[in-house]
Amino acid sequence: MTTMVKVAIVGASGYTGLELMRLSSQHPEVALIAVSSEKHAGKRVGEVFPYLEGKVNLTFYSVPAHQGVNDADFVFVALPHRESMAVVPTLLKKGKRVVDLSADFRLRDPDLYERWYQQHAAPEWLKDAVYGLAELYREDIKKAQLVANPGCYPTAVLLALAPAVKHRLIDVSTIIVDAKSGVSGAGRSAVISSLYAEVNEGVKAYKVARHQHTPEIEQELGVIAGKNLTISFTPHLVPMNRGILATIYATLSASLSEKEVFDLYKGFYQRDMFVRLCPLGTFPSTHQVKGSNYCDIGLTVDTRNKRLISIAAIDNLLKGGSGQAMQNMNIMMGFDEGLGITQAPLFP
Amino acid sequence: MTTMVKVAIVGASGYTGLELMRLSSQHPEVALIAVSSEKHAGKRVGEVFPYLEGKVNLTFYSVPAHQGVNDADFVFVALPHRESMAVVPTLLKKGKRVVDLSADFRLRDPDLYERWYQQHAAPEWLKDAVYGLAELYREDIKKAQLVANPGCYPTAVLLALAPAVKHRLIDVSTIIVDAKSGVSGAGRSAVISSLYAEVNEGVKAYKVARHQHTPEIEQELGVIAGKNLTISFTPHLVPMNRGILATIYATLSASLSEKEVFDLYKGFYQRDMFVRLCPLGTFPSTHQVKGSNYCDIGLTVDTRNKRLISIAAIDNLLKGGSGQAMQNMNIMMGFDEGLGITQAPLFP
Amino acid sequence: MTTMVKVAIVGASGYTGLELMRLSSQHPEVALIAVSSEKHAGKRVGEVFPYLEGKVNLTFYSVPAHQGVNDADFVFVALPHRESMAVVPTLLKKGKRVVDLSADFRLRDPDLYERWYQQHAAPEWLKDAVYGLAELYREDIKKAQLVANPGCYPTAVLLALAPAVKHRLIDVSTIIVDAKSGVSGAGRSAVISSLYAEVNEGVKAYKVARHQHTPEIEQELGVIAGKNLTISFTPHLVPMNRGILATIYATLSASLSEKEVFDLYKGFYQRDMFVRLCPLGTFPSTHQVKGSNYCDIGLTVDTRNKRLISIAAIDNLLKGGSGQAMQNMNIMMGFDEGLGITQAPLFP
Amino acid sequence: MTTMVKVAIVGASGYTGLELMRLSSQHPEVALIAVSSEKHAGKRVGEVFPYLEGKVNLTFYSVPAHQGVNDADFVFVALPHRESMAVVPTLLKKGKRVVDLSADFRLRDPDLYERWYQQHAAPEWLKDAVYGLAELYREDIKKAQLVANPGCYPTAVLLALAPAVKHRLIDVSTIIVDAKSGVSGAGRSAVISSLYAEVNEGVKAYKVARHQHTPEIEQELGVIAGKNLTISFTPHLVPMNRGILATIYATLSASLSEKEVFDLYKGFYQRDMFVRLCPLGTFPSTHQVKGSNYCDIGLTVDTRNKRLISIAAIDNLLKGGSGQAMQNMNIMMGFDEGLGITQAPLFP
Repeated sequence: MTTMVKVAIVGASGYTGLELMRLSSQHPEVALIAVSSEKHAGKRVGEVFPYLEGKVNLTFYSVPAHQGVNDADFVFVALPHRESMAVVPTLLKKGKRVVDLSADFRLRDPDLYERWYQQHAAPEWLKDAVYGLAELYREDIKKAQLVANPGCYPTAVLLALAPAVKHRLIDVSTIIVDAKSGVSGAGRSAVISSLYAEVNEGVKAYKVARHQHTPEIEQELGVIAGKNLTISFTPHLVPMNRGILATIYATLSASLSEKEVFDLYKGFYQRDMFVRLCPLGTFPSTHQVKGSNYCDIGLTVDTRNKRLISIAAIDNLLKGGSGQAMQNMNIMMGFDEGLGITQAPLFP
Repeated sequence: MTTMVKVAIVGASGYTGLELMRLSSQHPEVALIAVSSEKHAGKRVGEVFPYLEGKVNLTFYSVPAHQGVNDADFVFVALPHRESMAVVPTLLKKGKRVVDLSADFRLRDPDLYERWYQQHAAPEWLKDAVYGLAELYREDIKKAQLVANPGCYPTAVLLALAPAVKHRLIDVSTIIVDAKSGVSGAGRSAVISSLYAEVNEGVKAYKVARHQHTPEIEQELGVIAGKNLTISFTPHLVPMNRGILATIYATLSASLSEKEVFDLYKGFYQRDMFVRLCPLGTFPSTHQVKGSNYCDIGLTVDTRNKRLISIAAIDNLLKGGSGQAMQNMNIMMGFDEGLGITQAPLFP
Repeated sequence: MTTMVKVAIVGASGYTGLELMRLSSQHPEVALIAVSSEKHAGKRVGEVFPYLEGKVNLTFYSVPAHQGVNDADFVFVALPHRESMAVVPTLLKKGKRVVDLSADFRLRDPDLYERWYQQHAAPEWLKDAVYGLAELYREDIKKAQLVANPGCYPTAVLLALAPAVKHRLIDVSTIIVDAKSGVSGAGRSAVISSLYAEVNEGVKAYKVARHQHTPEIEQELGVIAGKNLTISFTPHLVPMNRGILATIYATLSASLSEKEVFDLYKGFYQRDMFVRLCPLGTFPSTHQVKGSNYCDIGLTVDTRNKRLISIAAIDNLLKGGSGQAMQNMNIMMGFDEGLGITQAPLFP
Repeated sequence: MTTMVKVAIVGASGYTGLELMRLSSQHPEVALIAVSSEKHAGKRVGEVFPYLEGKVNLTFYSVPAHQGVNDADFVFVALPHRESMAVVPTLLKKGKRVVDLSADFRLRDPDLYERWYQQHAAPEWLKDAVYGLAELYREDIKKAQLVANPGCYPTAVLLALAPAVKHRLIDVSTIIVDAKSGVSGAGRSAVISSLYAEVNEGVKAYKVARHQHTPEIEQELGVIAGKNLTISFTPHLVPMNRGILATIYATLSASLSEKEVFDLYKGFYQRDMFVRLCPLGTFPSTHQVKGSNYCDIGLTVDTRNKRLISIAAIDNLLKGGSGQAMQNMNIMMGFDEGLGITQAPLFP
């Protein structure tokens, strides 16, 4: 008990913030001591979110007040992009260790950030931030003060492609990512386009070839490939609460069997408890990872067209968000990597 | 570790059996040693149900073979009605402690069972079975060899009504139960009426005034009331995976305020960790209990009509099925009642 | 062609307004000449609502401008409650015939309106308004200048109960209405509670025993019964786009067989093309009426409890809204009652 | 009235057969005289499918009996693949004009059929069958005795790509099709994988790189391109009743602006009433075509990668099935091409 880490969540009433509260409530080494929400400041968590009644016995505070955070050792920042970079530097200066779930510290190049988002307000911190994909940066995460938690789409795409790029199985100029996301990915904002009756019974593409997660994926794939690259990335909205499925196409560099590709992936992920490879001939479903921190990956070789097809499924709020954030905290604090986040998927 | 209970699940590939496997995999005192499935006998669990890959490393066996069960101390039977009563007596004779999730041992009167189901094949065991609603029968459950796990609808209805009947707040001849269930309640059978395209975008009543859970509810309410009674019970099918909402109407026996009713309920459930009362003026949603063992109850007095309206929400596969079964096992084994089943609801 | 009626829709960008545009586009005697929307004023209909591209070639105008309406012979007002009563009197004074889809002219007693809504701004017009349920008021509708289109819930409930009340089959002091609605019933407003991820996978009651449709139902049942009465009415929100299912319970006044009840209903609705009685032993589903103007009704007698259970299903946007509004226009204009609105349900 | 065509539907109880009944009931020139169903032979249509009560007053007959078909001038065959080719030749020999909705007469090369399906039982009829995509083969369809109605996926893909291939805008060796379908596409068979609780809250790929619609797409694109080609085609299952969205990627052959591509598409489809091009910058949703015979197409140029992205949305049961079949009948019979099938989409 004396070792429990005192945790605060800034921005706790969005979907990722809510998940961080839920995960904190069942984490054996976390003492959640403060949660912020501008909208609900002054209200008990259970009053606004009845499902957390009995699990989180705190009252939302307002960020400017900030007193709640001072006692924390560790802070999750789950604010929208741009708001996050106004808060994180202050926390870092106070010596807190931080996992930031926004996009604000994921891109190493502030110009790139400006091109896809807006001007960066704290570019001096970019070089210190570690990209929080444990399967790629586990050792760096251990020592980081600031971890930039990956975007939901990039998590699925990078895990689906990293071994192929690493082992130079594919021509990286031919990568096409067709991704499908559940609606919680759009956040908990009251907008017409997220209304039940607008979303239900429909599937559509959005931000075609201009989604802001594109440079994040390209940056990280570029690191692995050792050279700059661009990808085509099309996200789609699917009528379900949670889940991302990324279907990825790329031309093979050499004639490889499915078994050879599979074995290389198997080796690449041999130490990663949250990556599961589907047996050859089978493919992942978001339904099979919902509520868990797993990323399931299925592979096939389209021999008629000499393409690799790699498909990854995650729960966008867990491995694609708060579960991964908790995984990063575990690594940073020296806990077992899966502590508190190994629950099985909830099916059906 | 030496105290872990060796558990078998007979009928593990239906939705309640699957949930029992999932819950067993995260229960600190359970060693799951055998799971049966006629349909999938000989196959690895993870092969048929990829979401359990890495969680349950067993191979389905066939019930007639039965060898897997011999080593178990404790057996969950999650077979369909009628099949269960063919298996349970054998287990009991071997000295196993059993929680049976079918309807076969819930009714104390074999004639009643015959009227609503079919002829009973093992009526001699009915008197020994304890009805597994911990909130009513906790002490009996502790000592039971055989616990008859309540039906999903009865669980919600009994928890919503028990305090009112106990304290004689309502005229028990006026009880009307209008219940709504998600589709997993229909089981994992390949029937046209459970197909996605048939269920989605529709809500309908079924088995109106003739659902087989009616006598179970009447039996248990009658015990509390100290006299026989009948209710009107109409179940509905709602397009969602999980959840039961029971909306219950009854004429008040006396002029009572909402606050008085609320306080009586509060007192009744003061020792029950899985019952949550909604603050007055608010009502439960199945969405707020999904994935948890909670039963949320909301109350109001319809003063214009002198009726009590009590609404209960549960996850039909957890508090209405496998979660409650695990709760019963905890009580029978002397564990903490919530061991392994206190996860927060998964929202959204 | 020379007989086509020139129609305007005030408030055309909510869900009922949208349906009125769609129905107008396929009605052989309607020339839709003007559609208003404050939010989208100045934009082409097809630009905002791509599904209507090629069907409605108009540009939204702003209500205050109003010029579009002057040429119309007939106006549908699909504004929210309270906004409607500010617009309708002006239209009436100009001699337009109007179907108003709001609640503003449904209650005959302005005090009742004030109690459940707010103060009424045009009470002098209440006596002239005809309640637009054709199955009850067909002859009055023919001659009406102003028809108050019934609420979605009242439509289902009144059709399910009218024959029973008329023929004094039930004790009207025992009526309990448990209704379930799809999400489009909440309108096209950007509110958190209507977001996909909030609604999906949940069912809940709302406005329990205090929904504003209660006095409307009581008023009309009272007219049929020839005396004042009160009902218990609980609406529920169900995760689907369209549909209302009303499950209604009442104690029988006499010992009646299902067949006798069925025959009385059959006789009552013999001239009503949009009411379908389900064969005895079967019950309606909203899925079977979706996209149509039908109201399907199923009946049973709960002999154990001497109660009648009557269940009605409608598409809330059609028979419960815009389809019924068009039906009323047909009657008012002397067209065939089903003109333009006889399309079959869209299943699945 | 004397000109009405007498129509029979063989295989009327699957989802496409049901849609053909619905569309027939509202077609002004169709007299539906016979509908077959092995499963429901002898039952009234409205008894099995209550939504069609009052719309189709026929009794299902059994195919072997066949008498119902003799009087028909025109027959829709909506049987599963393989069953169809056992029935169609007999109908043709009797002089009936036929639209066959199965895959049995779509491929011109019987060897290709055998490779992707099974051996062909009536290869001699393949040369006479006209591929029923009106936008490509309108003139041939007019004179055809047998029209092979396109598959649901091919319809969306071919309409999305035909202008680009025709005008040689793309390198046809780089075509990747990522398609998403609603569940009705899987048919009305009682299989576990189509159960509500299995499909809901999940998205997954299936038959990756080996779906039987692949050769159909390749055949028709090859005709337009004037050379053989292969594509990568991955279908996905999405939790919704209806709809197909096909997202298609191909490398541009030349540097073209979006506007130039758009204009070429506009010209290509200038005479096609059911193809709608989305304004540049916008993309289609299946929700915007549901219940209609429209195909909506959105286009963009991914300038960073020199790729064309073309996205098409259809209702798989209408433009992707029965609506297109009716469109073909209209063309064959010399009716207006849109007769009976111009209803607007049903939104929401």
